Amino acid sequence: MALLVETTTSGREYKVKDMSQADFGRLEIELAEVEMPGLMSSRAEFGPSQPFKGAKITGSLHMTIQTAVLIETLTALGAEVRWCSCNIFSTQDHAAAAIARDSAAVFAWKGETLQEYWWCSERALDWGPSGGPDLIVDDGGDVTLLIHEGLKAEKLFEKDGTLPDPSSTDNAEMQIVYTIIRDGLKTDPKRYHKMKDRIVGVSEETTTGVKRLYQMQANGSLLFPAINVNDSVTKSKFDNLYGCRHSLPDGLMRATDVMIAGKIAVVCGYGDVGKGCAAALKQGGARVVVTEIDPICALQALMEGLQVLTLADVVSEADIFVTTTGNKDIIMVSDMKKMKNNAIVCNIGHFDNEIDMHGLETYPGVKRITIKPQTDRWVFPENNSGIIVLAEGRLMNLGCATGHPSFVMSCSFTNQVIAQIELWKEKTSGKYEKKVYVLPKHLDEKVASLHLNQLGAKLTKLSKDQADYISVPVEGPYKPAHYRY
Amino acid sequence: MALLVETTTSGREYKVKDMSQADFGRLEIELAEVEMPGLMSSRAEFGPSQPFKGAKITGSLHMTIQTAVLIETLTALGAEVRWCSCNIFSTQDHAAAAIARDSAAVFAWKGETLQEYWWCSERALDWGPSGGPDLIVDDGGDVTLLIHEGLKAEKLFEKDGTLPDPSSTDNAEMQIVYTIIRDGLKTDPKRYHKMKDRIVGVSEETTTGVKRLYQMQANGSLLFPAINVNDSVTKSKFDNLYGCRHSLPDGLMRATDVMIAGKIAVVCGYGDVGKGCAAALKQGGARVVVTEIDPICALQALMEGLQVLTLADVVSEADIFVTTTGNKDIIMVSDMKKMKNNAIVCNIGHFDNEIDMHGLETYPGVKRITIKPQTDRWVFPENNSGIIVLAEGRLMNLGCATGHPSFVMSCSFTNQVIAQIELWKEKTSGKYEKKVYVLPKHLDEKVASLHLNQLGAKLTKLSKDQADYISVPVEGPYKPAHYRY
Amino acid sequence: MALLVETTTSGREYKVKDMSQADFGRLEIELAEVEMPGLMSSRAEFGPSQPFKGAKITGSLHMTIQTAVLIETLTALGAEVRWCSCNIFSTQDHAAAAIARDSAAVFAWKGETLQEYWWCSERALDWGPSGGPDLIVDDGGDVTLLIHEGLKAEKLFEKDGTLPDPSSTDNAEMQIVYTIIRDGLKTDPKRYHKMKDRIVGVSEETTTGVKRLYQMQANGSLLFPAINVNDSVTKSKFDNLYGCRHSLPDGLMRATDVMIAGKIAVVCGYGDVGKGCAAALKQGGARVVVTEIDPICALQALMEGLQVLTLADVVSEADIFVTTTGNKDIIMVSDMKKMKNNAIVCNIGHFDNEIDMHGLETYPGVKRITIKPQTDRWVFPENNSGIIVLAEGRLMNLGCATGHPSFVMSCSFTNQVIAQIELWKEKTSGKYEKKVYVLPKHLDEKVASLHLNQLGAKLTKLSKDQADYISVPVEGPYKPAHYRY
Amino acid sequence: MALLVETTTSGREYKVKDMSQADFGRLEIELAEVEMPGLMSSRAEFGPSQPFKGAKITGSLHMTIQTAVLIETLTALGAEVRWCSCNIFSTQDHAAAAIARDSAAVFAWKGETLQEYWWCSERALDWGPSGGPDLIVDDGGDVTLLIHEGLKAEKLFEKDGTLPDPSSTDNAEMQIVYTIIRDGLKTDPKRYHKMKDRIVGVSEETTTGVKRLYQMQANGSLLFPAINVNDSVTKSKFDNLYGCRHSLPDGLMRATDVMIAGKIAVVCGYGDVGKGCAAALKQGGARVVVTEIDPICALQALMEGLQVLTLADVVSEADIFVTTTGNKDIIMVSDMKKMKNNAIVCNIGHFDNEIDMHGLETYPGVKRITIKPQTDRWVFPENNSGIIVLAEGRLMNLGCATGHPSFVMSCSFTNQVIAQIELWKEKTSGKYEKKVYVLPKHLDEKVASLHLNQLGAKLTKLSKDQADYISVPVEGPYKPAHYRY
Repeated sequence: MALLVETTTSGREYKVKDMSQADFGRLEIELAEVEMPGLMSSRAEFGPSQPFKGAKITGSLHMTIQTAVLIETLTALGAEVRWCSCNIFSTQDHAAAAIARDSAAVFAWKGETLQEYWWCSERALDWGPSGGPDLIVDDGGDVTLLIHEGLKAEKLFEKDGTLPDPSSTDNAEMQIVYTIIRDGLKTDPKRYHKMKDRIVGVSEETTTGVKRLYQMQANGSLLFPAINVNDSVTKSKFDNLYGCRHSLPDGLMRATDVMIAGKIAVVCGYGDVGKGCAAALKQGGARVVVTEIDPICALQALMEGLQVLTLADVVSEADIFVTTTGNKDIIMVSDMKKMKNNAIVCNIGHFDNEIDMHGLETYPGVKRITIKPQTDRWVFPENNSGIIVLAEGRLMNLGCATGHPSFVMSCSFTNQVIAQIELWKEKTSGKYEKKVYVLPKHLDEKVASLHLNQLGAKLTKLSKDQADYISVPVEGPYKPAHYRY
Repeated sequence: MALLVETTTSGREYKVKDMSQADFGRLEIELAEVEMPGLMSSRAEFGPSQPFKGAKITGSLHMTIQTAVLIETLTALGAEVRWCSCNIFSTQDHAAAAIARDSAAVFAWKGETLQEYWWCSERALDWGPSGGPDLIVDDGGDVTLLIHEGLKAEKLFEKDGTLPDPSSTDNAEMQIVYTIIRDGLKTDPKRYHKMKDRIVGVSEETTTGVKRLYQMQANGSLLFPAINVNDSVTKSKFDNLYGCRHSLPDGLMRATDVMIAGKIAVVCGYGDVGKGCAAALKQGGARVVVTEIDPICALQALMEGLQVLTLADVVSEADIFVTTTGNKDIIMVSDMKKMKNNAIVCNIGHFDNEIDMHGLETYPGVKRITIKPQTDRWVFPENNSGIIVLAEGRLMNLGCATGHPSFVMSCSFTNQVIAQIELWKEKTSGKYEKKVYVLPKHLDEKVASLHLNQLGAKLTKLSKDQADYISVPVEGPYKPAHYRY
Repeated sequence: MALLVETTTSGREYKVKDMSQADFGRLEIELAEVEMPGLMSSRAEFGPSQPFKGAKITGSLHMTIQTAVLIETLTALGAEVRWCSCNIFSTQDHAAAAIARDSAAVFAWKGETLQEYWWCSERALDWGPSGGPDLIVDDGGDVTLLIHEGLKAEKLFEKDGTLPDPSSTDNAEMQIVYTIIRDGLKTDPKRYHKMKDRIVGVSEETTTGVKRLYQMQANGSLLFPAINVNDSVTKSKFDNLYGCRHSLPDGLMRATDVMIAGKIAVVCGYGDVGKGCAAALKQGGARVVVTEIDPICALQALMEGLQVLTLADVVSEADIFVTTTGNKDIIMVSDMKKMKNNAIVCNIGHFDNEIDMHGLETYPGVKRITIKPQTDRWVFPENNSGIIVLAEGRLMNLGCATGHPSFVMSCSFTNQVIAQIELWKEKTSGKYEKKVYVLPKHLDEKVASLHLNQLGAKLTKLSKDQADYISVPVEGPYKPAHYRY
Repeated sequence: MALLVETTTSGREYKVKDMSQADFGRLEIELAEVEMPGLMSSRAEFGPSQPFKGAKITGSLHMTIQTAVLIETLTALGAEVRWCSCNIFSTQDHAAAAIARDSAAVFAWKGETLQEYWWCSERALDWGPSGGPDLIVDDGGDVTLLIHEGLKAEKLFEKDGTLPDPSSTDNAEMQIVYTIIRDGLKTDPKRYHKMKDRIVGVSEETTTGVKRLYQMQANGSLLFPAINVNDSVTKSKFDNLYGCRHSLPDGLMRATDVMIAGKIAVVCGYGDVGKGCAAALKQGGARVVVTEIDPICALQALMEGLQVLTLADVVSEADIFVTTTGNKDIIMVSDMKKMKNNAIVCNIGHFDNEIDMHGLETYPGVKRITIKPQTDRWVFPENNSGIIVLAEGRLMNLGCATGHPSFVMSCSFTNQVIAQIELWKEKTSGKYEKKVYVLPKHLDEKVASLHLNQLGAKLTKLSKDQADYISVPVEGPYKPAHYRY
């Protein structure tokens, strides 16, 4: 696939796998709309006032059917949008096609190379001569990283003509980033300066990206305000937990058809994602072993009847391994070598460094047998025993299945919409400094309330007297900031 | 696709979708073998003595990866095999290709028409001039039905030249059966006579087929001995229950990506299949309502915290409907009209008459929108509200996903292998009359024991003293025949 | 407590702990009646026709509140009743008092010695000069055993004056039985002859008693017809399973207040009782390990995510041990010595020989510290480490708590009522031979249906057309005899 | 029981129900110690340095076996202790006796009147002429309230001789508080002044008390530093959740023996306590309906498959009602009148105003039938239909059972010990102002880690490289403050 930007008849740029899948994508988008009441309510509530009028939004977030509904909510509210995916395997090509045809500039396809991935990210940021973006929707923080690295390079270049040196790192992905920036510098040495000046803020979707933002806030390098969407209760306690409870077994089943019942499954990490994964595996009839570094999370696992051990304790008897840590070097090739024949190894965390794919790929004599896309059997030469790695160690629920279902993504994405509206509305008020913010609790509660009716729930109303008794307003928010749900 | 039998280079007949998928099928078969210890043990135990030497086996059973391992177990034990699927949507084309290329005559593809389906069944029974089959593996009883109907027709024809009259029934499928038999009569009016004389017996896989066999036994029309594999404990209490617990959500997810959590799900029927479905939906976070005719099963559902209501009570508020009854006319078009927009309607029972597909298809003004194969949205003209029907009302776990996982099918299919061996071994002994038999308990226990080691289980051994105390042999069987598990 | 029979003002015999608890017992009986719709329906349906008019019923079954409702159902239907408990710890003294005062001759108290236990059993069988009983309600078969042993002894005595020799056995309980019979022979050497001639039949409540009955049927020694109530579906699949799921944690909590979450619990045996226990412990947050001899039950445990090991594998790391086998010598004193300090050991099976209490009691230097009645800490001299034994190794749910709750016992006891009516109605018809019978399925279904309304359930009705399609009557029974539920 | 303080032979004051139960209490305390590794580790770690040397601690917290282990941990660390219970029904008399005899001044018994309750609280605060307390352990804040109200009254009295007027409120409990303070003023008008000056701080156990503290902090009336123990993760996410999951069914079973399976249970409130209750009821086989005011908690309930409705929607069909809100007026007498006969109504929240007991007690013609202590049937005159109220609307798990089990209380109470040590250590440093504090996360993690070993858990250790990658210290704390677990 040559990396040439294409253009729709209406003049919108795009690069997707197969435009003929647009109709299929549209049908699934229509189904998803029914399952995404938060986003549809946002269209109804905010659409008439066009709050995003004039706003140019760049998004880097899995280009799925659910994201399509998010994008079309942003455009319904007046925004102009360019989009890329934040993972090389997570794009649903029919979703990308429908959006590219109908709504926004999309640069994404399932199975990008890393080179292609960063090319897409650059395109999503490239608003042409009129400039942009005004706002960023990020997931994992790659676009935010690109802008920060770009600006850093431009400053150095400005100072003394230094160009970024890809060979200065052995991180394959950063080599590409530096190359892109270096090549860009030759064309427009002020590109990221202009971008920085214009950007009103970013809303970040996930734990990993949020961690980067807090690091930048801590060292003072953050270039614009950021809203931490991940830590809205209606995001992290729903999407991360219930989303993974749904999509982990979905990914396992689509990739391997393996029976979960009776198996020993190891879940590395017992945060929200790990809790969702462990719950799904336990309910499916597996015996679940958790690995944890945090004694509190470990004690939670024990209270749920799960065993807490180290990876070394179970590596040779378990059948399924899932990493959920957000950390790196969780399952190394030396661990994989000890596993049972056809043990399944996968990662549901954001980045692909939880599993030592590099170690596996470079293991002398190892043989890779691709059963089907995203399902590989790797055979070690010593014992001719193989393990099955899903989605090349990347996000298995998006690589092997379709990610989280629409309903729970509606919670997450309604937070995104609200965050974007908030940033744009306050763009000149100075309300938001170059810091990381969480949405106020009453908006978090609002997101939840938009999703109750569809499930037939009826809320109880506080009387004034009761509200006073517990010192909250009748209409909420109902909990102190530190409440853990 | 023209209905022409093709021939491999080795001369074996077949008709499959795409022979180029054989390599992919072979890879998945190899994975499945690791998950099917019962079948692999059978190969190890019985292979050397070639118990099926000389036996010609016709099978009519979902042509999946798991069935491929069954077929190759039969051939490894010396049998010659011809195979068709017992459902128009359940074939996995790569499995069919691998078997056709490597092991047996296969006539099956995903998405057969009914016409094609019965053509395939006829082909599987057609052993050419040398005659056959000797044994039948049946699932749902269609091949057994064809033989019984065929013989009936031949007798009438013999008597007075009467030919079967397809117009005598308004059952679309029986019209095809009569047509096939009628056309066959012209070629060979003794075909089914010869078959009946030769057939040693049938082993039947599922509840629905077993029900037919007991009806034939009751009215004295059964033509050969039958082993009811379905009612082996290691079949019905495993495959039906744990298999469906796995494959129902798998089918729902692959077809619709719908979030199960928070939904109201109606499970019609609370037998083994219904129990598995209800468990899966409850564990996925749905609120499950059960419909039942049997007060005992209803009381079981209540004890599990499920609500027991009639369909009419919940038809307009539920989100997901699953039929598991083995009966007919469970969800009628008049029910479907009352459902919420995008309610999901599916059947996991063997035949497609649980859901009134005929009523739906012929509803005036109804519109069918195919989202993707096996996932259709049907829109009623009155309110423009749609429902989503999976696999055209047929077995949704095989139509929309890949059916039950290998491990649990290993239990079921090891019973099949044992049943076939038993029938063939006793072919001349008179041990089996024209009746329906269940495998003896010690064989049932053996099937279970073949599956324990792989899951790391260790059995406790009875002492002689303990065995005497509870009046069982030390080596089993351990339970009376009426024990319910 | 001197073993003297007392007499109410109305002249009814009894021996209970404390007659002043009768009012309390009556209040709890009234609560229980609301929870026992099957028994109350039986009173409404059969009361007017007084089917037990003239019948004298002896019952040996835990003298609890629930049994009180059973007894008063029998008397409401016209029977005269004498009752004893079938376990030395299971009597609820307030229930015994209320019944003794108001309805039937009761000989039972919590904490009988074995000597007292058999004295009570004898009293329950002693209908005085006018003779009796006509019918037996048995649980575990002790009264049935007494009659069979009694008759055997009378025959020997008649033949050559041989008296039973208590010293011929080292089973402490049989020594008492022989002594009682021997002493009785001196008074009335035809007592059991007369009893046998009169008794119409027995209905047996539990697995253990049923096992004995089948053994007697097999060796031809059964003296009268027996109805196996245990194997009614509405008994064994409800009382054994859901009853234990309720009463096991109840007993653990009342006896020890121990936190179940986080513990390793070993359930010996995975039959219906074991399934209920394992489910309760798993739900409470324990990690459950199952021991099994039967590969089928073991595979079921695995499918539910439970580990299957031998006792030896986990004896030194588990926290809670429950025996549910109906077998003997499951946990020996040599096992107990290896346990962690304060490991809890208990039995929920019928007899107290699952746990080696004799070995424990006679262990040199062992020290028993009674925390409270039925909760003992036994300290081994070697390591000063103790284990906690509940209810002296007897039925812990009745010894330490109040047994199964009313609702599920209503299912079991409605089967008892129906069985007793059936035996009495057919007393002269010859319908029942000296064999063991199970109630017909339509009565089983009836028992279930009597319990649905109270839980708000609505059954679906079969159409004639549907009933024909699955070959069952519209009004049931709906399943073949071999159906396992 | 005359309200006279008694004195042990060693001269320690006390007032308990029955000193003869001390031995029994001691045995159960010894069992509990094995289950409370956090407290026992604290004794081992801090005992040698006697950190509480010279400290006088007043505690107002359920006088149970678990609290006994807490008290003896405080004394083992050098403190002198006086104690009362914080609920009229929660004292375990054998625990009170053992502590009174062996370790601390106890004023508590099960079934205090409100008058007696406040007398006990006063006694616990009364350190005699030498003055005290230095530290407060509070649960619900009653002792803290007494001191604050006392000081307020002393100031008014000082100003113009005004005495508190019990008739100024219609809250029965506040009338008693005012009376006590009024009477005390006559004896020592500076009592609470002296107390305030001396008190170093309070550590508060529960949500309700914490709410009061934050209100006082907000309006500037808080007299001394407070540590909010409730919001330690190892308290509120364990004790509130897993403690209630254990003790709710325990209380239901001991009070009513009702079968939970099949019932409709309403849980009012879905906070941590409600989550634990709902989980227990669901696992027990009930169908659970949740009532909520907070849309986020409501959505959590839905994701777990629970129905969310208002009380009015289900009041007439549910069987069991549990209030967990911490609010008031949740179930009113007008609701109770609509309930089914023998519906069970109980409260597991801290105060008894969740259920309208006053309305029930004063309902014209209502009849109260005490089945047994803490289990009352209330019969309405109109329809002769009754409801069953547990523990007179107070904490049912402590009133009807024994509260939370030792293991989870070990987590809570280790936080208490750490909080008390912290307050005492920093008594002169000025570290703590008159505000509400939460323990730092590393201490929270420490509490958890003290409980892992006993459950056989093994933690994974972060490498330095991994710790840096996620920006945490190798030894923790591992999560940001806002993390919700």
